Amino acid sequence: MSEKVKAASVPLCPVSSEDDPEQELLCIFGTGDLGRSLGQRLIQAGYRLVYGSRRPHSCGPLPPGTQATSHEAAAQSAQLIFLCVHREHYDFLESLTPQLKGKVVVDVSNNLKRDLYPEANAEHLQRLIPGAHVVKAFNTLSAWALQNGPSDANRQVYLCGNRTEAKQAVAETATKLGFTVVDRGSLSAARELEDSPLQLFPDWRLPMRLTVGLTAFFFLYVVIRDVIYAYVEQRKDISFRIMVSLANKVFPIVSLIMLSLCYLPGIMAACLQLSRGTKYKRFPDWLDRWMLCRKQLGLVSLAFASLHVLYTLIIPIRYYVRYRLAAITISQIRENKTTAFDTTMAWRTDSYYSMGVLGFGLFLLLGISSLPSVSNILSWREFSFIQSKLGYLTLFICTFHTYLYGWDKFLHLASYKWFTPPSYMLCLIVPSAVLLLKMLLLLPCVDKRLTRIRQGWERADPEDGTRKSLLT
Amino acid sequence: MSEKVKAASVPLCPVSSEDDPEQELLCIFGTGDLGRSLGQRLIQAGYRLVYGSRRPHSCGPLPPGTQATSHEAAAQSAQLIFLCVHREHYDFLESLTPQLKGKVVVDVSNNLKRDLYPEANAEHLQRLIPGAHVVKAFNTLSAWALQNGPSDANRQVYLCGNRTEAKQAVAETATKLGFTVVDRGSLSAARELEDSPLQLFPDWRLPMRLTVGLTAFFFLYVVIRDVIYAYVEQRKDISFRIMVSLANKVFPIVSLIMLSLCYLPGIMAACLQLSRGTKYKRFPDWLDRWMLCRKQLGLVSLAFASLHVLYTLIIPIRYYVRYRLAAITISQIRENKTTAFDTTMAWRTDSYYSMGVLGFGLFLLLGISSLPSVSNILSWREFSFIQSKLGYLTLFICTFHTYLYGWDKFLHLASYKWFTPPSYMLCLIVPSAVLLLKMLLLLPCVDKRLTRIRQGWERADPEDGTRKSLLT
Amino acid sequence: MSEKVKAASVPLCPVSSEDDPEQELLCIFGTGDLGRSLGQRLIQAGYRLVYGSRRPHSCGPLPPGTQATSHEAAAQSAQLIFLCVHREHYDFLESLTPQLKGKVVVDVSNNLKRDLYPEANAEHLQRLIPGAHVVKAFNTLSAWALQNGPSDANRQVYLCGNRTEAKQAVAETATKLGFTVVDRGSLSAARELEDSPLQLFPDWRLPMRLTVGLTAFFFLYVVIRDVIYAYVEQRKDISFRIMVSLANKVFPIVSLIMLSLCYLPGIMAACLQLSRGTKYKRFPDWLDRWMLCRKQLGLVSLAFASLHVLYTLIIPIRYYVRYRLAAITISQIRENKTTAFDTTMAWRTDSYYSMGVLGFGLFLLLGISSLPSVSNILSWREFSFIQSKLGYLTLFICTFHTYLYGWDKFLHLASYKWFTPPSYMLCLIVPSAVLLLKMLLLLPCVDKRLTRIRQGWERADPEDGTRKSLLT
Repeated sequence: MSEKVKAASVPLCPVSSEDDPEQELLCIFGTGDLGRSLGQRLIQAGYRLVYGSRRPHSCGPLPPGTQATSHEAAAQSAQLIFLCVHREHYDFLESLTPQLKGKVVVDVSNNLKRDLYPEANAEHLQRLIPGAHVVKAFNTLSAWALQNGPSDANRQVYLCGNRTEAKQAVAETATKLGFTVVDRGSLSAARELEDSPLQLFPDWRLPMRLTVGLTAFFFLYVVIRDVIYAYVEQRKDISFRIMVSLANKVFPIVSLIMLSLCYLPGIMAACLQLSRGTKYKRFPDWLDRWMLCRKQLGLVSLAFASLHVLYTLIIPIRYYVRYRLAAITISQIRENKTTAFDTTMAWRTDSYYSMGVLGFGLFLLLGISSLPSVSNILSWREFSFIQSKLGYLTLFICTFHTYLYGWDKFLHLASYKWFTPPSYMLCLIVPSAVLLLKMLLLLPCVDKRLTRIRQGWERADPEDGTRKSLLT
Repeated sequence: MSEKVKAASVPLCPVSSEDDPEQELLCIFGTGDLGRSLGQRLIQAGYRLVYGSRRPHSCGPLPPGTQATSHEAAAQSAQLIFLCVHREHYDFLESLTPQLKGKVVVDVSNNLKRDLYPEANAEHLQRLIPGAHVVKAFNTLSAWALQNGPSDANRQVYLCGNRTEAKQAVAETATKLGFTVVDRGSLSAARELEDSPLQLFPDWRLPMRLTVGLTAFFFLYVVIRDVIYAYVEQRKDISFRIMVSLANKVFPIVSLIMLSLCYLPGIMAACLQLSRGTKYKRFPDWLDRWMLCRKQLGLVSLAFASLHVLYTLIIPIRYYVRYRLAAITISQIRENKTTAFDTTMAWRTDSYYSMGVLGFGLFLLLGISSLPSVSNILSWREFSFIQSKLGYLTLFICTFHTYLYGWDKFLHLASYKWFTPPSYMLCLIVPSAVLLLKMLLLLPCVDKRLTRIRQGWERADPEDGTRKSLLT
Repeated sequence: MSEKVKAASVPLCPVSSEDDPEQELLCIFGTGDLGRSLGQRLIQAGYRLVYGSRRPHSCGPLPPGTQATSHEAAAQSAQLIFLCVHREHYDFLESLTPQLKGKVVVDVSNNLKRDLYPEANAEHLQRLIPGAHVVKAFNTLSAWALQNGPSDANRQVYLCGNRTEAKQAVAETATKLGFTVVDRGSLSAARELEDSPLQLFPDWRLPMRLTVGLTAFFFLYVVIRDVIYAYVEQRKDISFRIMVSLANKVFPIVSLIMLSLCYLPGIMAACLQLSRGTKYKRFPDWLDRWMLCRKQLGLVSLAFASLHVLYTLIIPIRYYVRYRLAAITISQIRENKTTAFDTTMAWRTDSYYSMGVLGFGLFLLLGISSLPSVSNILSWREFSFIQSKLGYLTLFICTFHTYLYGWDKFLHLASYKWFTPPSYMLCLIVPSAVLLLKMLLLLPCVDKRLTRIRQGWERADPEDGTRKSLLT
């Protein structure tokens, strides 16, 4: 106990405790690449530095102004110790228990793979040296950033640890190196911090697979229905249309389906809650996973919608289009025909384009509101207004845009080449179903029941009277 | 006094005070929906939990691993108590004063309406149990986020309270649940936190009303001047033009007016300061409100400008446009006429488009710089350089773009159908006035005086000599 | 020593230490503009306020509810003192040493120029009054924000100081005024904070100069080759093409060069490391500076690429283009010729446009990922995946897009007017070189060596065996 009191009374972070600080002395265990990079940076920031090494006399060149001593001596001289050593070599620390008592030990290690060990490195370390205050920090930074200071994705130092004062001492150092500090709580968060640098867009895996699958399927579908059909039936080679025309068929189709897939799981969840009569039962796993990647689905959909817009806008500068338009004009003159202006056609195409522009505009708004800094300043009610109300409006407008594109071709047999429906008809199935189900859920009788369930009401439960209110 | 010392010595947040923490015990008052959701999440995060309830034996199913006891017993067993009870039922807490002494009580409540009570819930609570340390927190999160963890607009836990240690204990818990903590200061900020989840874009109300008003007016105006005029005078039905052509007249008009309305209040404020000879008098209320919604006016203007761009870019793929272009070519051939290439026309239209593109590019830059994360990394001098200097440049270019569109039509009587000016002439009034006034304000003699006023100088004041300098 | 203990026991920030705080009393030294603005705001936030002044009876109007006394009396009455006085007048504080002992003194001053003094104002102040706890804060805010509260670029209060408790007291006040607090560490960061409001995009200077230089050069180049050549050789005035056609030649050229200049320094660094056989030698200064402005180069390149896209999309609505297309059609009819559809041409132009759209889409993605709030949520591995892997892909696609534009014109002598190559050929040099070098660096033998060097390996060093591993 007296040990602990002493530890607390030792100025853990002299910089903040004395008004006229002299340069603080820090210690680094390990003279490998990471230790040298970090050391260089600490020296630049005005710290004095001592290295602890197994072979203090043969550990190679160190940053100027530093020296290496034994682990024992180094540990004794500083309050804050950076541990730049692989986890496999942690064992030597056990013998340093007396020297490390009350010291702050910063674990900066990462593993090469996830789940290599049953326990996080930092938790393992804390068990090895229970008298020290272990803080996990700096491990989410690249070695480059450790040496050169913060930049872009390397601005924030995440740290966690069981002792507030120890975390403050590390935070002070990180701040002095120019980083912003984000406290992730107690040492139990160490596992998460250690996994973070190993992952590459884990939330995007499912949406990306879906995107690739859908894109490949529809690309094949339109190639068969357009290019191969034309070649087989009419002996015409229109393969040049793949680059723009066919791409511009696939992009909007995938975009619309992905957008509707954002809203489908919410509707499924509502149906489940209605049929179960409670919100306290967990959803099946696949539904949970699906709901967690709605944002990614929406962003992919927006990217494809943007490509669709760009591909549409370059239509009039394409050689093929200009050639065809000129050919039509020329043939009209040669055959001395005049086509009358078709007002219905004008209405239809203009409405079609107008819906497309408005839908895309709303979609962009959804995208902007999901930028982290924008969604942070929105209250959750404002965010859900945009993502849900405006989101459904976007889905409706985009679906309507596609229906206008189809117009009466649904009824013409000629549309069904080789007995297959055009691709845009296929893509209308999911969004139409989503919109229909949403309308059903908005019926007053259904909506009222769902609202009650979401406020905690449970069906056929003897004491439900006490649980109708949000708070008891 | 001894009570206070004891309170401070009790480990408020064991997680951060012991190096090998066992699971901390928390308490929740209230077994309603909110209490159960929050409880579920706390259990998942590794806390032990006890519920305090009026009817501990009949309070319905609780999260597994938890139990309900009386309020007294529950309060005694934990240091941190979440209060998941409606404000109307707070009174029972008075009888718990002895048990709650020195405890941290987290008020998560919200009201159904603003200004329902003269005092914020948390402040009311603190008066009821003066011995406890009340912290307002978690109330800005949705119930869904409380149960499922942070997402999008639910990443930040705002908290406020009078005691730093109490706030730290709550912050530690929030961090462990995965949230980022934002300290909003003392309990006097509770009212603001309680109002926040009730509001839906309060800053956007005035700009949205203005937008709807302007859009409706100009839409009506162009419908009368174009569609109805054509129908009455020439018996032609050109109503199909509403969808794209007329929309594309209204959008840029509203956009330009809104943009100039961003800069008008600043000019008015400058004129007021000049005429008053001081900057220390408050502006009239309407001007203050106007100045506070300039950002929103600008963003709406940018949205309309973007729609204008998209509507302009789809022009060449419209059926109507293609038909008309073909018709012109055909008639030229049939009548065997040749129109000479008009260099002036080429210069004029190309300049017009060029100005439009550059103006829109600059406008986008203004929009990007007002994203919260971008404006945060800018110093205020950089921000005001962009928003003011580049902003006026944008306004100038966009106004010039509109003048180029008009060209010499201002002088042609045929432009004034039914004695009304074309809509774009109407929309030029405000921006032209703003630019003219700005130029007057930039005249050296005026600018010098204004600068002095803004540095604290006051007119006709006997001691103004002492106040000319920024700092005394 | 006893002094220090006393200082620590005095409630530095009563707001957070008492549960039912009465209004805290603050002190402002200086009754100039800044002192008055700040005072007004503090009064509004519920603080009581006293001014310290040299001439307490003739210091002009102060905010209502405040009064001025002598510096001594004011300093004695409050724990927190805002110093709104120019640095030149700091000397009077020395005589207040006894009254200021243990007080928190907030230095809000800025200088008119950088490097005016050898020492930061706040450090100078701390030396003058060593017994006080100096905190640098609020100086990065505009006077307008100090008076009216946070907005856009004025949301964050940066502070630094040697004593944590003093910083906390100031942070509490800043939070109460509505600001977010960012701790920048010890007082040695004061210089940086004082320089910050004086700078105007310092990182952008080099990239902007380069942009202006490149744009001017290529603009002149295309004007000479197109407009002047046509005038001299064919006596045709095609100067109207400057506004759109020539601009649309310059923008993509500058954009592509700037994009490749983002990636060139990385390749140079790799080559340097390979030839030196170590990563521990510093790069030459110019290379360091170049590497630090890669982000800015990329963003300028993206801006120019966006202009290129917009300028391309307005092509079909230009008068000149419509005139020319109609003229071609008319001449075809008059001369009774028919041009056959050229499939190669269709493939080539469609591929060209397709590459352009895809390249621009990827480029937008790069731009979005460099928004601060987006790059903050990415791990550095994810960020470098986007910026490096996708970045090179973007560069490749955009270069390919330009080669497709050129097609076989490289071989036609007619392309080389006045023996100069077309501008797009010039702009292909740097990106082609970058891509070629990158491919060389990706060769397994080179890549392996580079990876080892970057993990700390050094060539021809006797003990390099111990240093091969990342951590020792």
